[in-house]
Amino acid sequence: MTSDAAGAPTTPFADRLADLVERKRSQLVVGLDPVIDLLPVELRGEAQGGRVAAASAVERFCKGIVDAVAPYVVAVKPQAAFFEALGSDGWRALETVSAYAREAGLLVIADGKRCDIGSTARAYATAFLEPRSGDPPLADALTVSPYLGRDSIDPFLAACRRDGAGLFLLVRTSNAGAAELQDATLSDGRPVWRHVAELVDTWGEDLVGARGLSSVGAVVGATVPRVIGDARRAMPRAIILLPGVGAQGAQPADVARAFTSGPSSALVNASRSVIYAYRDAPAEDWRAVAGAEAARLASAVWSAAGW
Amino acid sequence: MTSDAAGAPTTPFADRLADLVERKRSQLVVGLDPVIDLLPVELRGEAQGGRVAAASAVERFCKGIVDAVAPYVVAVKPQAAFFEALGSDGWRALETVSAYAREAGLLVIADGKRCDIGSTARAYATAFLEPRSGDPPLADALTVSPYLGRDSIDPFLAACRRDGAGLFLLVRTSNAGAAELQDATLSDGRPVWRHVAELVDTWGEDLVGARGLSSVGAVVGATVPRVIGDARRAMPRAIILLPGVGAQGAQPADVARAFTSGPSSALVNASRSVIYAYRDAPAEDWRAVAGAEAARLASAVWSAAGW
Repeated sequence: MTSDAAGAPTTPFADRLADLVERKRSQLVVGLDPVIDLLPVELRGEAQGGRVAAASAVERFCKGIVDAVAPYVVAVKPQAAFFEALGSDGWRALETVSAYAREAGLLVIADGKRCDIGSTARAYATAFLEPRSGDPPLADALTVSPYLGRDSIDPFLAACRRDGAGLFLLVRTSNAGAAELQDATLSDGRPVWRHVAELVDTWGEDLVGARGLSSVGAVVGATVPRVIGDARRAMPRAIILLPGVGAQGAQPADVARAFTSGPSSALVNASRSVIYAYRDAPAEDWRAVAGAEAARLASAVWSAAGW
Repeated sequence: MTSDAAGAPTTPFADRLADLVERKRSQLVVGLDPVIDLLPVELRGEAQGGRVAAASAVERFCKGIVDAVAPYVVAVKPQAAFFEALGSDGWRALETVSAYAREAGLLVIADGKRCDIGSTARAYATAFLEPRSGDPPLADALTVSPYLGRDSIDPFLAACRRDGAGLFLLVRTSNAGAAELQDATLSDGRPVWRHVAELVDTWGEDLVGARGLSSVGAVVGATVPRVIGDARRAMPRAIILLPGVGAQGAQPADVARAFTSGPSSALVNASRSVIYAYRDAPAEDWRAVAGAEAARLASAVWSAAGW
């Protein structure tokens, strides 16, 4: 058992997530990918006054989405890139939005896909996963790229142990170009991603919580259903984060095989199809439409998962 | 020929770098890895008053290093993680320090090791490489991870074409754990990193400048000299960024093979051994010691490169 900044016991990420999934009957994560040109018109107008104004519009948009989807999702996944695109003002919006989501009872999975050698990875763990001066950490979990190997992951594993943080390692991503490297065949016949999956299984070995799931999870694109079953077999204790449902084309039924290790053994992420759902229903309130789409998707995923 | 925000012609990164290398007779890059506990004592004290104070101390330290090393180096490489560890205040320091280095005539290579699917990679390109509202971009070049393949690189290649930006793709990194994935053997006998090197060579094909070098470069750890020659053969037009000299143990002579494509075809990066050189000479001014170490190293690399 580890402690948070206030000295209270911190439950491992995998167990905190399992509690939320069971309580809310949802395995849905909504991705926060704020793009100025896609914001509702009243916020888009407000965003035109430079970076400070744009960051403020992004903050209001993300808070509105958090309010709307909070009953139906277990976590939000702010995508660091869209905040960094607004510089330090955007980073401040990321901090504010993350704190707001946590106050709404949601977990925050920072999508940063960070990776670096050990001394630098330690700084990324500080930036995203460690409590600072009494404040909670920026996020509960972070997406991490595996290309640099074990010693680049160790500082993040330390944050899992010490602060109850979670990780999601990129294993097989949802984009077309993923095939170029991740599907290359190794001399023993395995694709590269399968080798990474086995590394991830090992890295998460001693971080298995009370529910039998590890706080070291994996990102596996929902757009490649044939891979999902293989990934589950290679990483039986990993929480699999499945992006690609919605705007990227995958359906809730495609992801059923990811859930064979338990109701909280996978999370489905939808970003643009939820947060910009208002664009297909321009007469309605953007928050209401996002909430309705999150509710619909959460229920579809829960049924497909079969728990 | 592309244009910068003010409409003036922007020279490709590879050519801007070549000019600087020849003018300064240096292929040295100094990495800015500001760690509070390692700062000179007067700044360490100042940094104790919370994140704003820490970010201000980091900013003063980095500006001092820029002043000291500017005559001897062609670029600085701020490591994003160490700034992000201080949150939005740290990100503001990164913006200030980058602008300061550019005013000192240096190129800025942001070490962010970013990677994501296309729509998100576009946001990272905006964050780091694109001019915004008349201001120059945060950096001249960015380190990028190749794990997600070509479509994750395209938005960065667009910034190279449009804004004269540069990229450094991770190929074979300098850390011990790199072997786990990067040295895994593919079915045709090549290690994974060699496959990546060939992809990088292709990705940079249409970004070759007037000097025969591409603005799409590669990161190859100087700690693995046997790899450097192979990497050069696989990527004859790439500018190879070589970290690992100094604190990580490699010597200037180890990197000679990287320079066979011309005097600006490789860059040697040293971080801690330069910026924290004062720790081995506590009686002297930290700036003076950093400057002296940069001068020594630049001259050693120039000799080893043999141009």
